Amino acid sequence: MISSLALPAVEPLDQTLRGTLQHLIDTKTKPPGSLGRLETLARQMGLIQRTTRPTVQRPAMIVFAGDHGIAQEGVSPYPQAVTAQMVANFLAGGAAINALSRVADITLEVVNAGIATPLPNTEGLVDIPVAAGTRNFAHEPAMTHDQALAAMRAGAERVRHHAALGTNVIGFGEMGIANTSAAACLMSRLCGVPIDECVGRGTGLDNVGLVKKRNVLALALARHAPGTDARAGGTPGAATPGAAALDVLATFGGFEIAMMAGAYLAAAEARMTILVDGFIATSALLVADAFAPNVREYCVFAHASNEAGHRRMLDHFGAIPLLALDMRLGEGTGAALAVPLLRAAVAFLNEMASFESAGVADRDA
Amino acid sequence: MISSLALPAVEPLDQTLRGTLQHLIDTKTKPPGSLGRLETLARQMGLIQRTTRPTVQRPAMIVFAGDHGIAQEGVSPYPQAVTAQMVANFLAGGAAINALSRVADITLEVVNAGIATPLPNTEGLVDIPVAAGTRNFAHEPAMTHDQALAAMRAGAERVRHHAALGTNVIGFGEMGIANTSAAACLMSRLCGVPIDECVGRGTGLDNVGLVKKRNVLALALARHAPGTDARAGGTPGAATPGAAALDVLATFGGFEIAMMAGAYLAAAEARMTILVDGFIATSALLVADAFAPNVREYCVFAHASNEAGHRRMLDHFGAIPLLALDMRLGEGTGAALAVPLLRAAVAFLNEMASFESAGVADRDA
Repeated sequence: MISSLALPAVEPLDQTLRGTLQHLIDTKTKPPGSLGRLETLARQMGLIQRTTRPTVQRPAMIVFAGDHGIAQEGVSPYPQAVTAQMVANFLAGGAAINALSRVADITLEVVNAGIATPLPNTEGLVDIPVAAGTRNFAHEPAMTHDQALAAMRAGAERVRHHAALGTNVIGFGEMGIANTSAAACLMSRLCGVPIDECVGRGTGLDNVGLVKKRNVLALALARHAPGTDARAGGTPGAATPGAAALDVLATFGGFEIAMMAGAYLAAAEARMTILVDGFIATSALLVADAFAPNVREYCVFAHASNEAGHRRMLDHFGAIPLLALDMRLGEGTGAALAVPLLRAAVAFLNEMASFESAGVADRDA
Repeated sequence: MISSLALPAVEPLDQTLRGTLQHLIDTKTKPPGSLGRLETLARQMGLIQRTTRPTVQRPAMIVFAGDHGIAQEGVSPYPQAVTAQMVANFLAGGAAINALSRVADITLEVVNAGIATPLPNTEGLVDIPVAAGTRNFAHEPAMTHDQALAAMRAGAERVRHHAALGTNVIGFGEMGIANTSAAACLMSRLCGVPIDECVGRGTGLDNVGLVKKRNVLALALARHAPGTDARAGGTPGAATPGAAALDVLATFGGFEIAMMAGAYLAAAEARMTILVDGFIATSALLVADAFAPNVREYCVFAHASNEAGHRRMLDHFGAIPLLALDMRLGEGTGAALAVPLLRAAVAFLNEMASFESAGVADRDA
């Protein structure tokens, strides 16, 4: 039973205050509905926090990094060593997510979920690797079920750490050379979409590289048709929520994706507002959603990635992201950019006058 | 000659640093282009400020408020007194633009460009009305050419005030019951678009109100066919840049729109990055653009308004706004929300490491 494996429990979003929140929003000094999605955000955050005065407190960004055996198949234009090099860059403060977190006053944490290359310096790193990279899923499952569950639990623990420090808004980013390949396979299997529609250029493959990536992943999916793999480790009952997703995660996933999946569950359990980043981050949400579909009620889809396939993954959730800025970097950069929008949403709800309090005439109607 | 009337002069955007800026952006530790529109913003701000290290300094929002004679025709669901009431709300800090400016650390200024109703309190107000509201353009031109030019100059002066205080990013908002009617007529005449495609629900007209508004404005446009009005005040030569636009502005515009048009010109003259808000703000830019088309090179189109017609007005500028959040409030609220994106753009440019400095391997290609 997966439910006995200490994964977080996610309650349905409490709707008690919906009417009260909507009335507050509608009586602010503005035409009804004229703040558009800021109004939806304010209401959602009020429901999540069970208050008419929601806040953005100690917003946090956890970037999970891990390596992928599938990188050996040449599916990325960058060498695998770049994962560790970029983690060093995160720790030194020089990456995009560092700049975007600083400017938006977001607490940034970097987690080694399972990097293949030794790190020269781990100061400031949460160094909890499951293993030194996954196995190559072109030939064998990327990880065992036990490893997948251990990673999910570890990701959940990182969120609980931030919950204890007062965080009520959180986003998750990732770094891992070849992880768009893992995410594309998760998407194909969990959304039932042909692999060709899930595969994109990642960090910038050319046309030849793109064809090669498609071929590698199509073969891998065929090799791991459902029910064909014998695997060591705990085998959950087939009827358990998430059992099929755990199998897909173990077969194709990365340790950073598995940690992120567990992190989503813990963030929803802690009633945080969750900012969902791009292609990889949304693939991890597919896994979390299979364990506890209520998780999506705590999510704000932050941005539409330019990575092919993200749009269709968003459709799976019926989501229209807040931002569409032609970005495709990962690291949580799209989620970080949405934090000021959440601050704006709670600011209007908490600070605006009502028609009555301001002495402004409401419409004739 | 309009050029002798002390309107600001706008230089073409200096392209000297384009190559240098692009190289800096391309060598940051990320796949080329992967920060999407943040990269475009960083480059534009660098060009505007003529530096490889652009900044967001003392961002300012000026909200121009004015009343419209056309309100007498019942084109808005709100009574005209709401303009003054909302200005009182701005001064008390209770409106949406107050909350959004505070949370984004934007300096907010409120200008009485020509409100019809006496204000109970003008503390904190820049009180420079051209007149107590425009005339009803269903029957006569809204203002004289001299009033239109005086308003443009006054708007320019407000921007120069902020330039002297160090502002290098500015947005303009507006408040004025019935000003979507004025803006729709400006759009129809200046973009050559049939009035029905320019008219929307404004603050929330129902279907009957919408039909009535269309009829009122179609009649007004027919009444003021080009060349039919005799008008007091300075008549510029027909060949002068902006002459036709000045005529359209005087016929249909509002004092807040005219001030905003002058403010755009002064902001571009002062080499500020200009955040363009929604439907009304973009209609004022149409006027400014007719005087000095280079003004658009200094503009960032901040958001896509839900007011019908804004999309087509944006098409006129070939603009895809940064944000599309289903908002239609005015006051500069869409522009205010874009300020954190500008901060993010300069942060990545100024703070990110390069592949070389961070010791990260670039792609194999």
